[in-house]
Amino acid sequence: MVKQDRAVRTRNALIESAAELFDRDGYEHASLSTISTRAGVSSGALHFHFTSKAALADAVGQAAVQRLEQITQQQAGSALQMLIDATHVLVRTLDHDVVLRAGFGLGDSLEHVRTGAGLRGRWQEWVEGALARAEGEGALAVESSARDAATAVVAVTAGLETLGRQDEWWLSRAPLTRFWRLMLPRLAESSCLDGLVASGTSAGTP
Amino acid sequence: MVKQDRAVRTRNALIESAAELFDRDGYEHASLSTISTRAGVSSGALHFHFTSKAALADAVGQAAVQRLEQITQQQAGSALQMLIDATHVLVRTLDHDVVLRAGFGLGDSLEHVRTGAGLRGRWQEWVEGALARAEGEGALAVESSARDAATAVVAVTAGLETLGRQDEWWLSRAPLTRFWRLMLPRLAESSCLDGLVASGTSAGTP
Repeated sequence: MVKQDRAVRTRNALIESAAELFDRDGYEHASLSTISTRAGVSSGALHFHFTSKAALADAVGQAAVQRLEQITQQQAGSALQMLIDATHVLVRTLDHDVVLRAGFGLGDSLEHVRTGAGLRGRWQEWVEGALARAEGEGALAVESSARDAATAVVAVTAGLETLGRQDEWWLSRAPLTRFWRLMLPRLAESSCLDGLVASGTSAGTP
Repeated sequence: MVKQDRAVRTRNALIESAAELFDRDGYEHASLSTISTRAGVSSGALHFHFTSKAALADAVGQAAVQRLEQITQQQAGSALQMLIDATHVLVRTLDHDVVLRAGFGLGDSLEHVRTGAGLRGRWQEWVEGALARAEGEGALAVESSARDAATAVVAVTAGLETLGRQDEWWLSRAPLTRFWRLMLPRLAESSCLDGLVASGTSAGTP
């Protein structure tokens, strides 16, 4: 049992270390020896857990998918508020969670890591689903399009992720709140508008 | 004269080659020997033009700034249409211009390349200026904020740039048109709305 715990800890340390190096150096340039050294693990132990760098990237991608699922499982009253909250949690999590950041990055640079490449796709699908639910709830203004809104939300969150690499302000609550403050009066049915919090509700606090 | 032409061509070939490798491998991992080989230039010629990799990155950054200036110098009737058009040209240019793409990327990864780091800042300043002019022209709806709009536009364009690395669709006209179609009825004063083209005017065709 103790042995198993240690194996899980070692595996997690390797995933965390790999995520840091993929995020910093890119998948191609991250070396397995640096990953194992940074994790405080022997090269033999790394190869026991992961047969190749691609297998390690796959594990980082899977861990990132789990993080994303935690974020999108949060509940709020309405579908639209749930979406606003999830975008806030996503962006704030990107600020400190290198696994999630690396997961998005892997998808950009590495087509063959399916789970990594799938992270943006999963996020997009979830955003589209949330907006479809909002439409079903009658919460969207008649003249606005759920599809257009999904495109804007996916682009804005990807942009904050990119801009946040250079300047952390972009991963703070302010810029995303500005986006929602601008967007909501156009997107939401007017009777729903007063109930929506552009800066996120407590469910949107990571 | 012929000699000078050749020197300019060599310098430009080195800038283009460096941009490609910075964009693909990142600044840290791009090697000077690969850059000179790809440019079809000897290592001695590279060192004649650029004393260091940082000097080469600086030249890429400066070339990217020039590209951005060309994009933001395009004229259209109103400040708001000028902004819409410039975002379209920026995004379409990112699709094929590796110097511009590398310029944005350098700023993300390399703080000491001032001109590279400055590219996002310059774009942001220009967007803010265009929205301030639109406000001065009375083209913004009273209840919307030029500052909020600038944040959204900067985030969306950075997002399209990131998403476009994985899927070129994001650098096509459609996603940005969706963003503007959603945004304009909220942002623009209603009497201006009919004159605005979310998909860009001919001035917005690169």
